[in-house]
Amino acid sequence: MASNVRSPLAPEQFPVVPPLDGVTFAVAETGIRYKNRPDVLLALVAPGTSVAGVLTTSKSRSAPVDWCAEKLKGGAARALIVNSGNANAFTGSAGVKTVTAVAKALGAQAKCKPAEIFQASTGVIGEPLNPAPIVKALPQLFGALRADAWADAARAIMTTDTFPKAATRKARLGDVTVTLNGIAKGSGMIAPDMATMLSFVFTDAALPPKILQKLLSRSSAKSFNCITVDGDTSTSDTLLAFATGTAGPALKGLKSDADPRLKAFAKALDDLCQDLALQVVKDGEGAEKLIEITVAGAENDKAARTIGMAIANSPLVKTAIAGEDANWGRIVMAIGKSGEKAIRDKLKIWIGGVQLAKNGMKAPDYREADIMPHMKGRSIVIKADVGVGKGRATVWTCDLTHRYIDINGSYRS
Amino acid sequence: MASNVRSPLAPEQFPVVPPLDGVTFAVAETGIRYKNRPDVLLALVAPGTSVAGVLTTSKSRSAPVDWCAEKLKGGAARALIVNSGNANAFTGSAGVKTVTAVAKALGAQAKCKPAEIFQASTGVIGEPLNPAPIVKALPQLFGALRADAWADAARAIMTTDTFPKAATRKARLGDVTVTLNGIAKGSGMIAPDMATMLSFVFTDAALPPKILQKLLSRSSAKSFNCITVDGDTSTSDTLLAFATGTAGPALKGLKSDADPRLKAFAKALDDLCQDLALQVVKDGEGAEKLIEITVAGAENDKAARTIGMAIANSPLVKTAIAGEDANWGRIVMAIGKSGEKAIRDKLKIWIGGVQLAKNGMKAPDYREADIMPHMKGRSIVIKADVGVGKGRATVWTCDLTHRYIDINGSYRS
Repeated sequence: MASNVRSPLAPEQFPVVPPLDGVTFAVAETGIRYKNRPDVLLALVAPGTSVAGVLTTSKSRSAPVDWCAEKLKGGAARALIVNSGNANAFTGSAGVKTVTAVAKALGAQAKCKPAEIFQASTGVIGEPLNPAPIVKALPQLFGALRADAWADAARAIMTTDTFPKAATRKARLGDVTVTLNGIAKGSGMIAPDMATMLSFVFTDAALPPKILQKLLSRSSAKSFNCITVDGDTSTSDTLLAFATGTAGPALKGLKSDADPRLKAFAKALDDLCQDLALQVVKDGEGAEKLIEITVAGAENDKAARTIGMAIANSPLVKTAIAGEDANWGRIVMAIGKSGEKAIRDKLKIWIGGVQLAKNGMKAPDYREADIMPHMKGRSIVIKADVGVGKGRATVWTCDLTHRYIDINGSYRS
Repeated sequence: MASNVRSPLAPEQFPVVPPLDGVTFAVAETGIRYKNRPDVLLALVAPGTSVAGVLTTSKSRSAPVDWCAEKLKGGAARALIVNSGNANAFTGSAGVKTVTAVAKALGAQAKCKPAEIFQASTGVIGEPLNPAPIVKALPQLFGALRADAWADAARAIMTTDTFPKAATRKARLGDVTVTLNGIAKGSGMIAPDMATMLSFVFTDAALPPKILQKLLSRSSAKSFNCITVDGDTSTSDTLLAFATGTAGPALKGLKSDADPRLKAFAKALDDLCQDLALQVVKDGEGAEKLIEITVAGAENDKAARTIGMAIANSPLVKTAIAGEDANWGRIVMAIGKSGEKAIRDKLKIWIGGVQLAKNGMKAPDYREADIMPHMKGRSIVIKADVGVGKGRATVWTCDLTHRYIDINGSYRS
């Protein structure tokens, strides 16, 4: 199937992810939907681990997302279990029974409260997920836990992804150096009735859940919430961060996420999330080109993001880029339709650093030939200044190609 | 070029449009962009004609749209001039000079104020439009005015449309029978850097501009504002209605658009606008199937339309339908992402009258085979009830096929 072809934007190789004290992984083949590949991931985290999360804004979110939303209030985690092949979304009361049964069984094995179990599922929407194969695999999973299984973990959560996604960073936090590792999966709202962007971030830093939550929300607003493949929001999008505190003691008197001692950690978390988010875009269905769109001069940052997303989600802009056509008239159209303030006669547009439009018309000295080499590349950089204020945002997407239609228009099975 | 293939959803033939007293047309070949085809339309309307309009909400709208917005305040029209091949959009002060020059010259010929001249342009964005060829063609156009040239008029305003679009209705208004005729063009935000949906409605009814405006706005909200091909809003969308009053005297003491004596006319105007709007969708770029989406049970009608548009603009829903895949999980996803209230566990979904989902899960007795004959047809009917309130709306779109990518991804030339 088309979606098995490795994305041309994929990294050369899987990154070297160092073990992280207090985090171990195991995977199992339970045959939920796929045969002969791991489809369940267990992550065990040290007692006392803080957890924070950002979940889909979908109004029809899945049973595991409902579960995580509830348990995040506790702020404590002991284990994470993820399955691919079935999203346990739009499954009614059966879906709730499944997440409850898995949490109960896993809690018994991990000797923790079910409230310390976090769950995510990705795959088919609307099919009941039977907990039995997952529960049955638990003893085997507990026997197989390893600290160096990051690549196995990244692979086990894939659906139609064409490459496993991970990233790592280090940062100083107080007197200790902490490590941040993350994995992600996602390739748009994914191929025939699959769904979801999932990302799990782990650190050995010691951080209270409330602070971890604020830092994660900030990072996600600048990364996962600034990417789009097809503008279709999954029922199951889940980003969770786990802080084991095993690297050293917590900062004394830490009250706020604005504490300057958190700066280096916050920066590393931003970088890590952006790295993972861009890997998702680079695995966008049918993607041939990565598109970075920066909007400046908007009324505020939120307006800039809205305008950026209007450009990023425009099928006309995305198909033009797939055709290596510097069709800036469509960028003008997308800015105009965004609904945000833009002063037409001050509008400026650049592609690949070349200015195409200024003062609401074509730049007099613009020659299309100047940007053809850029249009033929793998990475397209668009900048627009809408001439209103100081609002600024950068968003990322990919082009819209025939393979997107092949992947999503082909009949299931 | 792919876009020249007549849409499989096109009507058998151009409708029989009766002449309308007080309205004459002429077309000319001025070579603005196209060769050997008419690209300018002149419509002359009787002195005393009322005019109303609905214009694009784009923040980067074209010079002719700015012109119409200003002149609609006067409520009086004597002539309409439309060119295809160049949208006169994003052309700065040069664009303003062009519409002013054309209005001045046409006003002199028609012996009316420039403020009674209405204009629309469709085609390339960002290229200056030279008024000279249009002004030069005016004497020839005035010499060629005819009452039976509706088909010529519909063809002259086409860009990459694959068929000319027109519709006609009759209605009782007071003691007289009035005629409503309309033409339209549009095929999405159209092929390589073309743009725009244009529609012009003419009636011999006698109606004051304010009443005509209210009736037109209401009809447009239920028709042109409920269709989408690719979710991309043009810089130039223009709907104008002209009422010549030549059918008979105005209704006495007409104060409000709610006057019961207007009911039949309003209904005919609704039907006419919906007929024209659906013809635009049926000519959607690459369209193989017409998709009607009705959302019921929403918080209010506006919320229902927002949910309907989220489904209609979802590339995953549109590609699934192109693949004749009854992928209702994607409809659930689109409802969830709309941002409007929906009670997941009350959600009901039907396709082609067959219920696929009820109470937030797959309908127990649903068999996919039951709806395959419907999925293979040209017209797909989707209904969703989101279980919140009494809000209801119907929207229309087309499927997303390889031809959309061919049309929009191919390099301009």
